[in-house]
Amino acid sequence: MIAGAIPLAEIWRGPIAESVHLGHAVIARDDGTLEDAFGAPETMVLPRSSAKMIQALPLVASGAADAAGLSSRHLALACASHEGAPLHVEAVGDWLEARRLSEADLRCGAQPPRDRALKHEMIRAGGAPDQLHNNCSGKHAGFLTLMQHLGAGAEYHEADHPVQVAAREAFETVTDRTSPFYGIDGCSAPNFATTVAAMGRAMAWFATAHGRSDPLSLAAARLVQAMIAHPMEVAGEGRACTLLMRAATEPVALKTGAEGFFIAILPERGLGVALKAADGATRAAECAVAALLVRLGALDSRHPDVVRFLNPEIRNFRGVVTGQIRPADGLFA
Amino acid sequence: MIAGAIPLAEIWRGPIAESVHLGHAVIARDDGTLEDAFGAPETMVLPRSSAKMIQALPLVASGAADAAGLSSRHLALACASHEGAPLHVEAVGDWLEARRLSEADLRCGAQPPRDRALKHEMIRAGGAPDQLHNNCSGKHAGFLTLMQHLGAGAEYHEADHPVQVAAREAFETVTDRTSPFYGIDGCSAPNFATTVAAMGRAMAWFATAHGRSDPLSLAAARLVQAMIAHPMEVAGEGRACTLLMRAATEPVALKTGAEGFFIAILPERGLGVALKAADGATRAAECAVAALLVRLGALDSRHPDVVRFLNPEIRNFRGVVTGQIRPADGLFA
Repeated sequence: MIAGAIPLAEIWRGPIAESVHLGHAVIARDDGTLEDAFGAPETMVLPRSSAKMIQALPLVASGAADAAGLSSRHLALACASHEGAPLHVEAVGDWLEARRLSEADLRCGAQPPRDRALKHEMIRAGGAPDQLHNNCSGKHAGFLTLMQHLGAGAEYHEADHPVQVAAREAFETVTDRTSPFYGIDGCSAPNFATTVAAMGRAMAWFATAHGRSDPLSLAAARLVQAMIAHPMEVAGEGRACTLLMRAATEPVALKTGAEGFFIAILPERGLGVALKAADGATRAAECAVAALLVRLGALDSRHPDVVRFLNPEIRNFRGVVTGQIRPADGLFA
Repeated sequence: MIAGAIPLAEIWRGPIAESVHLGHAVIARDDGTLEDAFGAPETMVLPRSSAKMIQALPLVASGAADAAGLSSRHLALACASHEGAPLHVEAVGDWLEARRLSEADLRCGAQPPRDRALKHEMIRAGGAPDQLHNNCSGKHAGFLTLMQHLGAGAEYHEADHPVQVAAREAFETVTDRTSPFYGIDGCSAPNFATTVAAMGRAMAWFATAHGRSDPLSLAAARLVQAMIAHPMEVAGEGRACTLLMRAATEPVALKTGAEGFFIAILPERGLGVALKAADGATRAAECAVAALLVRLGALDSRHPDVVRFLNPEIRNFRGVVTGQIRPADGLFA
């Protein structure tokens, strides 16, 4: 994980980089070549939630999404790590209800909403989060919809269940290699391993899907379009995916993943970006993905919502600026 | 910061170290030699809250603490990064009141309590945190007490104020070198820079203070004794400093600092430990300091409160174990 890693982001305080985040990143083309590589692209990683659009491929490619009448908004939720705001909770709840399913059919576990207002409201009301608030509830609603379509059993999160077998097949197809192992994700679904480079190439495959007509590519193009059309559904207020997708000067699909993962899909250029902060830091992944998109010209480094992740000020409890986050020089060079 | 850093802790998920934390650490003797060194001990760092017992030295050495009738418990609070639990908030409030001071005299800023029960209670009551809840309020009560003793102005947090000039002089004395610069800390006070090795030696100086009779050493011995006697005051329920001090098989003073810092003071051995996770991760610093204390024999690796930081399981939202944190091999070797 560390071998060959290079600095991605620095945390400055006074005249010193108080902390430094290393990692690996690629900007990949669909032909399998890398336009740029940083660190060690062959490092084996778990892309975590950055793989959600891959996990959603069978939902669309199988015909399950159309059979269930899912909209572009549903597909964005299937690719989301949302913040459990009313917007997300209600949409996923309605989706399940329309499928004659309920919160109890989910297997993602209950997670407190990241949405601050909702969380405080819940505490004031003496309430508790349920599985709809889980950031992965849209992905799991997609799993459930595919499960119904396949007539398969209820434990859809288990690695040998047809839903996860299909997810693995899609993952190995788009990364163009066998996944040697998986880890169990925060939401209990298997998360398949690959390399940073293969993940970048998979994102380039998504970025070029609109130019192909095979069923998997047609599904991929619809998922990319859904993410770009619904940035609030993909994450939420104040979140990097949402704000950077909105700030982009061209259509870009962005997706964070736990432990410092981030991907970008650039359909107008046919490019895919994948990066992993080796220490798992989200602040580094957000800064680095912003830097790479500035480097490519898809983000303006002066846009306030870009500055917020690319080069944010660090303020203390009295509001005094005590430092800042900076992308490492190499990402811009 | 990164040059020469070595792995301190690994975050495992399935069969892979999904993330790895690098850093630097020393186990130092008071004679200036290092019993052990990991990474690059000459790396320049900001020790952040791990320096609080140094910042509290002038409070005691000046006679201000005795003139104000401060107890051992007050001295522990002066060295604390507490969680803003009622225990801490009330004790600091009483301290200020006894000095005819109030919350408004603090300059640390308001911070929501880390204590979960209190935070939720505050949200339910529609309340807001004040400066007493700030994890540094005890340190600042100490600054205010010294300020009164010196008859100095109200802005005691400013770098050229007599309180901070005294803190800098103490810092340079115990680290035995000039501090080349400072950063502004989360609580608005200057935080002086030094090397990991010098910080380790300073902690060894604290660990041997009880054997000396100069005023600064007498003050240091009292502060170490206060921290060891009052682990709840130094941090709080569930926190690493508190639990590891309680679990230790001999008297040990422990203090965390922001951005992945940690120190340990071992008076029975005359040893000091200082470590910095280069990426700023607290989970790495907690794991590594536990590992070094196990290595030294001051912690039992099977004690549940040691396991909690040394080798904790990572559970997902359904309570399934998905991985674990492990100290890097080198720390035990």
